Amino acid sequence: MRNIKIVIEYDGTKYKGWQRLGDSDNTVQHKIETVLSKMAGENIEITASGRTDAGVHATNQVANFRIDAEMPTHKMRSYCYEYLPDDIVVKTVEEVDLNFHARYNAKVKKYVYNICNNKAHNVFNRKYEYHIPQPLNVEKMRKAAGYLIGEHDFQSFTTLKTKKKSTVRNIYTINIVNEDGNVEISIQGNGFMKNMVRLIVGTLVEVGLGERPADGINDILDKKERKYSGHIAPAKGLFLEEVNY
Amino acid sequence: MRNIKIVIEYDGTKYKGWQRLGDSDNTVQHKIETVLSKMAGENIEITASGRTDAGVHATNQVANFRIDAEMPTHKMRSYCYEYLPDDIVVKTVEEVDLNFHARYNAKVKKYVYNICNNKAHNVFNRKYEYHIPQPLNVEKMRKAAGYLIGEHDFQSFTTLKTKKKSTVRNIYTINIVNEDGNVEISIQGNGFMKNMVRLIVGTLVEVGLGERPADGINDILDKKERKYSGHIAPAKGLFLEEVNY
Repeated sequence: MRNIKIVIEYDGTKYKGWQRLGDSDNTVQHKIETVLSKMAGENIEITASGRTDAGVHATNQVANFRIDAEMPTHKMRSYCYEYLPDDIVVKTVEEVDLNFHARYNAKVKKYVYNICNNKAHNVFNRKYEYHIPQPLNVEKMRKAAGYLIGEHDFQSFTTLKTKKKSTVRNIYTINIVNEDGNVEISIQGNGFMKNMVRLIVGTLVEVGLGERPADGINDILDKKERKYSGHIAPAKGLFLEEVNY
Repeated sequence: MRNIKIVIEYDGTKYKGWQRLGDSDNTVQHKIETVLSKMAGENIEITASGRTDAGVHATNQVANFRIDAEMPTHKMRSYCYEYLPDDIVVKTVEEVDLNFHARYNAKVKKYVYNICNNKAHNVFNRKYEYHIPQPLNVEKMRKAAGYLIGEHDFQSFTTLKTKKKSTVRNIYTINIVNEDGNVEISIQGNGFMKNMVRLIVGTLVEVGLGERPADGINDILDKKERKYSGHIAPAKGLFLEEVNY
C-alpha cells in the first residue's frame, strides 16, 4: 500500500465543484478518480485539502490517495495528463508517508479572488474575474479587511448551516492589490467554511462601493448570522492557490 | 457625415475571423456592424486595419466607419457594450478627421504570439496559447528571427496565392521573451499577409526544436515558395496587439 500526494490545477467553469453530495458525475474529484482507477486497475478514492464549490478554480489543489500498484509516480502523472480533460491537470505526483492526509494535515490555505474594476470587462479574463464597473475604494476595502484578521467566529461569513461544528477560524493575511483596475484579493487562513471567501469578498466589495462602512465589520462578526454580511461574490473569480502542510 | 474610429478587443475563439469572404454571419465585423446599424438606424459598414483569421484574437484592433447620426461617442461606446456579445468589447470610440482610413493609414502593426513551453499546458490559458511540451531553444529562435528583420520578399511566409500584389514587407522588430516557460513572441512590421505571423512563428518553433538550422532562414526567403517555410502555428496563440498611425 502506497500513499500518493498530487497537486492539481483545474478550471472549475463547467464542474459542479470538487465534490458534490448527490449523484452528479460532473465533479473534478470524479473525473480524477475515474482516470486513476482505470490506471491502477483498482478502485481509487482521493481526498482533497477541501472542497471547492461549483465554478471555483484551483491552481494548486492538493489531494492524496492510497494505491497498491507499483507504477512509478512520473508514469502516473503522464497517464493522468493523457486521459484527463484539458481543464484538469495533475501537476505533480509524489509518494509520501502513509500518515499524510490532505485534509487533516492542511495548516494554511491561500485563496485568490480576481476583480476587474474597469468600465468594460476584459474579454480574455471574463470567465475568471468578477466585473465591477463602478469604482472601488480599495483603501476602504483594506481597512475593512483589517477587522477580519485574527481568530474570530466567522458564523456571519458562511452559508454552512450546522450548529454542531465550530465556526471559529483564524485569518492570517488579507492583501488587496490594485493594478490598473485589476484588483486581486489574497486571503490566507487556517481554514475556510462554505462560501466564506466569497462572502468576505462580497462584503469588502460593498465597502469599496460605499454601501457599508469599513468599521461595520466588527458588528457583522458579533451578530453571528449570515444575513448581516454582504452578497456572495461569483464563483468564477475565486482560485484555491496554495495549501501548506 | 462623421468619421468614427473605434478600438476593439475580441476573443476570436468562436468566430470565423474578422471578415470572411462568403456568407457567414459569424464574424467579428458582422457582429459589430449589426449592433452599430441598429444603433444608428442606418446601414453601417466598418473598415478594420486588416483582417484577422478564424480563431485569432485582438487586444487593440482598429476600425472606422461613417455615420450620419449625431449621437455622442460615449453613448456609442455604451450602446456597443450593452448589445455586443461578451467576447467583443469596443474599448474606445472617437470622432476623427474625415480622411482617416483604418487600413490605408496603418503604419505599424504589432502582433503577439503566446507559447506555453512547459510539459503540461496551463488550464486557464489553454485557449490563448500554443502548447509545446518539448524544450525550445529560445536563443536559436532569436538568432533565426534576426534574419527576418528588415525589408524582404516574404512570399515564402504567406499562404496568399496572388501573383499580382507585392509580397515585400518590412519587419521592424521580433522580440522573444521566455518567463518560466511562457514564451512570448512580439513582431512589429509595416504589414502582414495572410498567415504570415503564424508561418514565421511555426518556422521559429521548428528552429527552437532543432528541426531546422537558425541560419536556414535566408534560404527560405530566397526560395519564395511557401512550401519551404515551417508549419502554420495555431490561431489561438495569436493576438493583434497594436496598430499605429
